[in-house]
Amino acid sequence: MAQVSESKASSVQASIITIGDELLIGQVVDTNSAWMATELNKAGIWLRRRVSIGDNKAEIISTLDEESKNASVILITGGLGPTADDITKPVLCEYFGGKLVIDEKALANVQSIFARLNRPMIERNFKQAEVPDVCTVIQNKRGTAPGMWFEKNGKIFISMPGVPHEMKGMMTDYVLPRLQTHFTLPFINHRTLLTAGIGESFIAEYIQDWETALPVHIKLAYLPNYGMVRLRITGQGVDQNILQADLNKQFAALKELVKQWMVVDEDITLQQAIGNMLSKTGKTLATAESCTGGYIAHLITAIAGSSAWYKGSIVSYGNEIKEKLLNVSGDTLAAVGAVSEATVQQMLTGALIQLNTDYAVATSGIMGPGGGTADKPVGTVWIAAGSRQQVFTEKFSFRYDRKRNIEMTANFALNMLLKVIRNEVNGEQYKKELS
Amino acid sequence: MAQVSESKASSVQASIITIGDELLIGQVVDTNSAWMATELNKAGIWLRRRVSIGDNKAEIISTLDEESKNASVILITGGLGPTADDITKPVLCEYFGGKLVIDEKALANVQSIFARLNRPMIERNFKQAEVPDVCTVIQNKRGTAPGMWFEKNGKIFISMPGVPHEMKGMMTDYVLPRLQTHFTLPFINHRTLLTAGIGESFIAEYIQDWETALPVHIKLAYLPNYGMVRLRITGQGVDQNILQADLNKQFAALKELVKQWMVVDEDITLQQAIGNMLSKTGKTLATAESCTGGYIAHLITAIAGSSAWYKGSIVSYGNEIKEKLLNVSGDTLAAVGAVSEATVQQMLTGALIQLNTDYAVATSGIMGPGGGTADKPVGTVWIAAGSRQQVFTEKFSFRYDRKRNIEMTANFALNMLLKVIRNEVNGEQYKKELS
Repeated sequence: MAQVSESKASSVQASIITIGDELLIGQVVDTNSAWMATELNKAGIWLRRRVSIGDNKAEIISTLDEESKNASVILITGGLGPTADDITKPVLCEYFGGKLVIDEKALANVQSIFARLNRPMIERNFKQAEVPDVCTVIQNKRGTAPGMWFEKNGKIFISMPGVPHEMKGMMTDYVLPRLQTHFTLPFINHRTLLTAGIGESFIAEYIQDWETALPVHIKLAYLPNYGMVRLRITGQGVDQNILQADLNKQFAALKELVKQWMVVDEDITLQQAIGNMLSKTGKTLATAESCTGGYIAHLITAIAGSSAWYKGSIVSYGNEIKEKLLNVSGDTLAAVGAVSEATVQQMLTGALIQLNTDYAVATSGIMGPGGGTADKPVGTVWIAAGSRQQVFTEKFSFRYDRKRNIEMTANFALNMLLKVIRNEVNGEQYKKELS
Repeated sequence: MAQVSESKASSVQASIITIGDELLIGQVVDTNSAWMATELNKAGIWLRRRVSIGDNKAEIISTLDEESKNASVILITGGLGPTADDITKPVLCEYFGGKLVIDEKALANVQSIFARLNRPMIERNFKQAEVPDVCTVIQNKRGTAPGMWFEKNGKIFISMPGVPHEMKGMMTDYVLPRLQTHFTLPFINHRTLLTAGIGESFIAEYIQDWETALPVHIKLAYLPNYGMVRLRITGQGVDQNILQADLNKQFAALKELVKQWMVVDEDITLQQAIGNMLSKTGKTLATAESCTGGYIAHLITAIAGSSAWYKGSIVSYGNEIKEKLLNVSGDTLAAVGAVSEATVQQMLTGALIQLNTDYAVATSGIMGPGGGTADKPVGTVWIAAGSRQQVFTEKFSFRYDRKRNIEMTANFALNMLLKVIRNEVNGEQYKKELS
């Protein structure tokens, strides 16, 4: 244990610095940092801190000084654009004592992009091909701004554009492989499972003895989201086989402990788990969405290859669409309203028939902020999930804002759907565990 | 100008510290910081830095020291949960020299939440009601963990839960109002417009003289996103009337300069602009989505009140759904395929008829990574937008990953739709400016 502990203490640590006034005025949500953190982690590099600062020279310099005190790798994104507010490149050039020179490969890249767009190049576009003469240039296959790799006092500084797909391309093609050869990195492995129907504090109580007994090189994280809790164990070690064996053993014990609440035992989304089941069995799926307004369809179709098992959705936002396209009875709508068990049952049947699939899921609810009544307050939702053989319905009461109510409904609908599919495929018992 | 500049230099600056290992392993995208930044900005507080750190005592303490050197307000989120990895509260208690005591109001709140959920309380739930005796307690109306307001050496430290809707509730109900009475804050105002069809560097070149001549209390930001560029001018001043007049004057000049590319002259989304036009004219909208897979419907239905003008979508992911529900001709599909001008035209007509609306938009394309051919590579997209009177179609070639191709398609579809609606409502000329 002591050995492992020491190995962890001496492991490579990284900091991320994101640069741009847009990060400080709230214009942009930083999705880059989470992606970079995931990739660093997989590579065996621990992310220590993330700092976001404005396009300000003094602030950039003091942050470079500060972060390089404790981290060996400093990843920098943003501020490489062609406009006057983008100052990262000249500041880095000065910081590392270089001068800006044209990089011929970067210039050819900028020229080819402008040729493809059929746009004339102006002076500030040529400047995109300038780089400090004290860095290794990281070519940008997806945009005009080159990346830069600097080394100083044994620390590595990597500057990349803030545009997500450009940054991701550079990380994957160049930065991560080079970091992996530069350092002798430990192995970091994760195992993740998803639970539903139990709160974070109750799980913690329930698995307390197991958690306390975990060896020091394995850590547990509780990751609650949308009314469910993901449990992730992370292990670090110098021998991949031993590490895998240790993790497998602990993960098996954890799975056994939480089996009554476990939904998925992989680090995949509910919709991916559904897709895997349908792909395996050759079955198909349709959705009929009122209150989720296409969000479930979007979550599903964001999966590459989903067209093999997902046929489509009828987003019946208006009641007349529920009647016309999903064959919901006008009498039902008049008698019990659109947010009712009978309506979602009929929506589901309508989707199965109209889109001719094996499974379907249907949602109807009041997402807010308006539309609530004493009988059916904002957050009231009915969900139906099923097949031609069986239909399950459940009522939920969410109490969040519109956005989160939609996300919660989608997540609970997918969870019901997954259970229904498993029910039929494995003969498992459908459990009404959510409330 | 000098006065304004001094006022800016002396204005209240804030730092955000987000705490949680989940932020450093990439499990969670930090959406809190962008929201907080926006709200602080509106209140006249400049956000200087954002720092994310793990659940680590030494790191929390050194970051509190560091951030309070330069900022007057330190906003802290996360690490207040009931599990062992959540250490923010005891660390803050020690940092400010207090001891943990039960807060009766917070306890009553925790008890009422557990009563509502019909769950028994265990010891770690009671601990949620403990607070340092050296803080002002911020009650949590949306969850169990109370917030904490500390003051030390003239600096304010505010600790809140990381759960977004809990944090937002505390900010809105308590933190922002109290900060506004605590400090004498300058006025900060923004004006934003959205352009399409011109790159960031070209706009910069085009408006260079105007930008250079901006007074020091007004700044311009370029915010490119999804192939469009948002321009935001931000002004700061001590007299709201003078500031408004200055901003109005500069914004009018900017609008005049970029009018040929301007899509929207407010800080609203394309779908919101569409909703505003439809609400005003009493017209209705439907969507027929293949490659966007419900994402356009989701963007629209995320707007509260959209049911007044949006009737729904047929997400026709399978070709048989295009035929059956949108009346796309099987001959057309056989002859030119689903990704074609003829298909999106027929999808649009099908949506107008089936969903009985005034306007519709239809998308069909290859989002990748699979499915591309030599004729129709990944990223090939056809969009149709129109009414019963006129239908416009355009072909696009995106070259990103699946997620971004979907987002780009949705954004360009909404832009086409907005132009079509304006075309009919205002008699404006539809311009094919995008490529």
